Amino acid sequence: MFTCGIIGATGYAGAELTRILLSHPDVKELRLSSSSQAGEKMKKLYPNLAGRALGETELVDQERAIEGSDVVFAALPHGLAEGIAAACFEAGKLFIDISADFRFGTDEATFAAWYGKRYARPELHALSVYGLPELNRSAIAKARIIGNPGCYPTCAELGLFPALRLGIAEREGIVIDAKSGVTGAGREPTKSTHYPEIADSIVPYKIGQHRHTPEIAAALAVMAGAPVGMVFTPQLAPMGRGIVSTIYFKVAAGTLGGTSGREARSAALREAYAEFYKDEPFVRVLPEGSVATNKDVRLSNYCDVSLHMAHDGRTAVVVSAIDNMVKGAAGQAVQNMNIALGLDERAGISMLPPAF
Amino acid sequence: MFTCGIIGATGYAGAELTRILLSHPDVKELRLSSSSQAGEKMKKLYPNLAGRALGETELVDQERAIEGSDVVFAALPHGLAEGIAAACFEAGKLFIDISADFRFGTDEATFAAWYGKRYARPELHALSVYGLPELNRSAIAKARIIGNPGCYPTCAELGLFPALRLGIAEREGIVIDAKSGVTGAGREPTKSTHYPEIADSIVPYKIGQHRHTPEIAAALAVMAGAPVGMVFTPQLAPMGRGIVSTIYFKVAAGTLGGTSGREARSAALREAYAEFYKDEPFVRVLPEGSVATNKDVRLSNYCDVSLHMAHDGRTAVVVSAIDNMVKGAAGQAVQNMNIALGLDERAGISMLPPAF
Amino acid sequence: MFTCGIIGATGYAGAELTRILLSHPDVKELRLSSSSQAGEKMKKLYPNLAGRALGETELVDQERAIEGSDVVFAALPHGLAEGIAAACFEAGKLFIDISADFRFGTDEATFAAWYGKRYARPELHALSVYGLPELNRSAIAKARIIGNPGCYPTCAELGLFPALRLGIAEREGIVIDAKSGVTGAGREPTKSTHYPEIADSIVPYKIGQHRHTPEIAAALAVMAGAPVGMVFTPQLAPMGRGIVSTIYFKVAAGTLGGTSGREARSAALREAYAEFYKDEPFVRVLPEGSVATNKDVRLSNYCDVSLHMAHDGRTAVVVSAIDNMVKGAAGQAVQNMNIALGLDERAGISMLPPAF
Amino acid sequence: MFTCGIIGATGYAGAELTRILLSHPDVKELRLSSSSQAGEKMKKLYPNLAGRALGETELVDQERAIEGSDVVFAALPHGLAEGIAAACFEAGKLFIDISADFRFGTDEATFAAWYGKRYARPELHALSVYGLPELNRSAIAKARIIGNPGCYPTCAELGLFPALRLGIAEREGIVIDAKSGVTGAGREPTKSTHYPEIADSIVPYKIGQHRHTPEIAAALAVMAGAPVGMVFTPQLAPMGRGIVSTIYFKVAAGTLGGTSGREARSAALREAYAEFYKDEPFVRVLPEGSVATNKDVRLSNYCDVSLHMAHDGRTAVVVSAIDNMVKGAAGQAVQNMNIALGLDERAGISMLPPAF
Repeated sequence: MFTCGIIGATGYAGAELTRILLSHPDVKELRLSSSSQAGEKMKKLYPNLAGRALGETELVDQERAIEGSDVVFAALPHGLAEGIAAACFEAGKLFIDISADFRFGTDEATFAAWYGKRYARPELHALSVYGLPELNRSAIAKARIIGNPGCYPTCAELGLFPALRLGIAEREGIVIDAKSGVTGAGREPTKSTHYPEIADSIVPYKIGQHRHTPEIAAALAVMAGAPVGMVFTPQLAPMGRGIVSTIYFKVAAGTLGGTSGREARSAALREAYAEFYKDEPFVRVLPEGSVATNKDVRLSNYCDVSLHMAHDGRTAVVVSAIDNMVKGAAGQAVQNMNIALGLDERAGISMLPPAF
Repeated sequence: MFTCGIIGATGYAGAELTRILLSHPDVKELRLSSSSQAGEKMKKLYPNLAGRALGETELVDQERAIEGSDVVFAALPHGLAEGIAAACFEAGKLFIDISADFRFGTDEATFAAWYGKRYARPELHALSVYGLPELNRSAIAKARIIGNPGCYPTCAELGLFPALRLGIAEREGIVIDAKSGVTGAGREPTKSTHYPEIADSIVPYKIGQHRHTPEIAAALAVMAGAPVGMVFTPQLAPMGRGIVSTIYFKVAAGTLGGTSGREARSAALREAYAEFYKDEPFVRVLPEGSVATNKDVRLSNYCDVSLHMAHDGRTAVVVSAIDNMVKGAAGQAVQNMNIALGLDERAGISMLPPAF
Repeated sequence: MFTCGIIGATGYAGAELTRILLSHPDVKELRLSSSSQAGEKMKKLYPNLAGRALGETELVDQERAIEGSDVVFAALPHGLAEGIAAACFEAGKLFIDISADFRFGTDEATFAAWYGKRYARPELHALSVYGLPELNRSAIAKARIIGNPGCYPTCAELGLFPALRLGIAEREGIVIDAKSGVTGAGREPTKSTHYPEIADSIVPYKIGQHRHTPEIAAALAVMAGAPVGMVFTPQLAPMGRGIVSTIYFKVAAGTLGGTSGREARSAALREAYAEFYKDEPFVRVLPEGSVATNKDVRLSNYCDVSLHMAHDGRTAVVVSAIDNMVKGAAGQAVQNMNIALGLDERAGISMLPPAF
Repeated sequence: MFTCGIIGATGYAGAELTRILLSHPDVKELRLSSSSQAGEKMKKLYPNLAGRALGETELVDQERAIEGSDVVFAALPHGLAEGIAAACFEAGKLFIDISADFRFGTDEATFAAWYGKRYARPELHALSVYGLPELNRSAIAKARIIGNPGCYPTCAELGLFPALRLGIAEREGIVIDAKSGVTGAGREPTKSTHYPEIADSIVPYKIGQHRHTPEIAAALAVMAGAPVGMVFTPQLAPMGRGIVSTIYFKVAAGTLGGTSGREARSAALREAYAEFYKDEPFVRVLPEGSVATNKDVRLSNYCDVSLHMAHDGRTAVVVSAIDNMVKGAAGQAVQNMNIALGLDERAGISMLPPAF
């Protein structure tokens, strides 16, 4: 049984992590921290917790949350994780960061270019692992510092991994068109998350400039074993949770068993994905006739992937869907914890998505 | 360990019951039945179940679902439960009906007036219990036929129970203004549940004529020990799950400890409710400053109740909120099963509502 | 042809007023003012105006907006209108205030109690008229200072006017349960208007304390010719525009032509309302079988009213619906302008609500 | 002044056309037809029309609607327009079809392949014109049979026209990722438009198989003067009205004035579009910093287009947004009528989109 500390427990990712860890069979205690709300009870901020012991929990400061914990999660704005990572590493604790700070490993230049900040402790980044279990499971098992992937990256990368690793996708001209629910923008009210601005609208944003771009590019390059040319567009949709990514790539000549015809090629693509992911506990390759949607993965750690072929018979269309707060943040963080601690990988995150 | 049969497993209530029972620690097997979809796999109808054993389950016919089960739930349209009740009763099985058929006990006249159908087996109704645990827990413990309350009735009745039982509410002039999510209208598409008709609108319906009216009236009369004059208006709101009832009653003279002033009287009312419900596992009386909303009970078996006083200092305003598919249908059915089987009343239904 | 100035043109009410006046046949010029955005172009704030001359309009300061205008509208937070009213009055301009500052006439005590501010220029309030055309049309025609009613008050008052004036409603025990779209909370993002907090939820707020309470009470008393006992509850619903008020009152004995039976009494009530409002251009009394909803009045100046009787045959249920930004704010302000200037009352506000 | 007949007036497109024509300055009378509802009053089907003369209009049969009209619009399911076109053509009336029947001109093979139906009167198709005014204005001016473009095609084609005509876009590898509101699926309730299935979800559908694919391909080929390789994916989003298309293409080498750098190339692309569309009354090319969204064109005949460059500096991202029921159906039909009758092209369709 482990004690887990959550630094930044009152943001959306922290609150979701709290909810998940609360039902985790191997977690005996939670230590919740918030810099701005120390001393406050959780139920004041999250009335859904009323009537539970957790609701009565008082938020502590960062030091207290770290000191008694075996595992420390940070769910803070970017740029604040290095110090926590250092403290945890020196004390032999497992540290899992939900911000972008530990997603770039030794590639400080990219981090600096997109996040405007240099590494203070580059040696910690050299030790860290990018926490996408489907890609890095064995490294995660040995890691003590894990950079949990971003929500858009998780969805896009799982949608492309088999195609890139198996050489089915041409490495140029990949398009990732992603639609996200508004919880992805966090708990802080802004003009762009004001209800009347979001309801009834699709709003693309930060086109060509979103910070998840280099993270996706880096992971796809690892998957493909070579640089990949891709374009990524994020969009806010009027929904609370979930990301649906519609991904386009050209099928490399001579792959898919030489099938011809849109349907046969769709089926061959689907089979390749199904085989590739057959042992993954949280990736579901959907059967013919189904299309992935955030509705069917909501509140679960699943990533659903459906495979299609455009009318030209040459362009594959992959639809990949996750719950941005679970597989895209808190659930995947717990999955990483499970792997790093040698627990059942599904412990505490095998929630079934509700039908509606 | 018990085997549970669900007759009508593919409607919304049946699907929610399936999801809940699947995680119930005392349920070893589910037998799902659908008259129209026998032979079909569940995952075809509910893609959220893909990747689970349950998704591969084939729907069976009604007889097979009943025969191997210890407990049988029916989630059918009104008017079809008597035959199932009889079969279960004769075979010594526990039967819990989610339709209205067993909500009226021996009051066949009311059932006939509002549902247009007479009892075929009045003796079964005489044996049945109205399954609102907070009102009838000890009778439920001994019952073999339980009529699970309607969604609107559950929400309204729990909002009024303390006030009526304690004599705080005057028994005339009670108003129940209820807003429901669209899952309450079921899985069948209709003009009134077509997305463009619902989105961005509040739509009152069946004013003065909704069939939940006599059910509410009957339960309130039991609570008050005398007939109660009340008005109930149902309304569709653009949300998936949940009911929020705003309930108005005049405070009886001389109650609330003789307090005066809006705030003091609100506090006295709140304390009376908190004391009344203090041992109830699924009713949360909210503290001062909080207002009940479906958001904070979503996907849980909780009923949240908040207490307020109008500016006149004489009219109490109670807000009561449930998830219509959980406490308002499937969750309460499981709560009734737990009580009737002598299990922990919270088994399988202690889900924490997500924060967002 | 008139020139209109709008003080506070960049809030939601100001922007809606701008849109409406732009198509008004008797308005030749608009002067838009914003204290915080002076010098900015409208299209920067409202991209919907791109490609229109209006989009290129630069916001001016308050003095310039007033000085060249025949009619001045203020759409500011409460407490800022007196000075503008004085300047307009002295210069012989028509002034219409969309805030609460001129809704209370000589009743300074009530204004002070609910808004925490005293009158600086009581003589201006004595000259002002409460701008509900259906109630005060002839006074509005002569007024130079008009206090435009609040959104909730407009909806509630029009739902009750015939019943109170004709003596159909008992004057005690009236309940007004109102649901509003989120634009009613204004353009400024807040926690309670953050998309994830609003979507999929009904949220009652300020129960017993909302500032529209005394405004409603005052108007109902004028309608009834005597004080009225009523309770008002506002609620945020996941919709952009619109208010739906469900209103309950006891039918006074001996009214409704002595009809009996729920349906006959509903019909009698409906006829009384239809007759009462038969010359009103913006109130539609719906036929039997229809229920008022914000969907059917959206973007129009209509108030739809439908009449129903509860199952008890004694409690009337009136549903009243408006677009909170049109009849509840900007449209009604233009209606008042039309009356005060002797124009066709419908000029510029006869927009047909879209079907969907 | 003209009389207009609408065949299929009670579907969503017909109802929207009715609403628009009702305010058209050159239309003196409307003749509304519905095969299934003949004799019924419009307000029964569309309560938003209550209180208007139009609401009292009785639906007539098809023959009567045609016979007295100068212009006939058909808004019927696909496959029913040829007979009406013939009748109108022989009687010298202008005919505008909102279905797909007259969108393919002499290319019967494509129509037959995607719609499963052959032409009965090929000579009428040879005379017809594809009604995208920005592409075919002069032909429309002389046409008597006009095939009004589909909603997705209008949005995609206007987003790509300048890039293809000016040779900025490479003609291979174009991706059109489109998100539509649910009114696009029509007025008939179905499982996929049931509120709980749509709310809070993005649902891609008919991937690689949607019937708008060949229509888009044909128009893009005309624009480019050569075949174009493109992929189109439609998706349902939880919104009532509107389409947002995110469009990707590779910028052809040597274009955009030889600029380099993401921002400079975005600006050059934007200028090229702005110049190309500078005389178009209904296309707005947005300035730097703005992104097209359905919110800003709602209820208007505008198509908003914003231009962006991906982080690779080589892939253009165009966002194109329309109201699917206006520029995507009824508004564009009126625009075509205006052109064909020699009226002001903006007559009756210059509605300003509301800000919220």
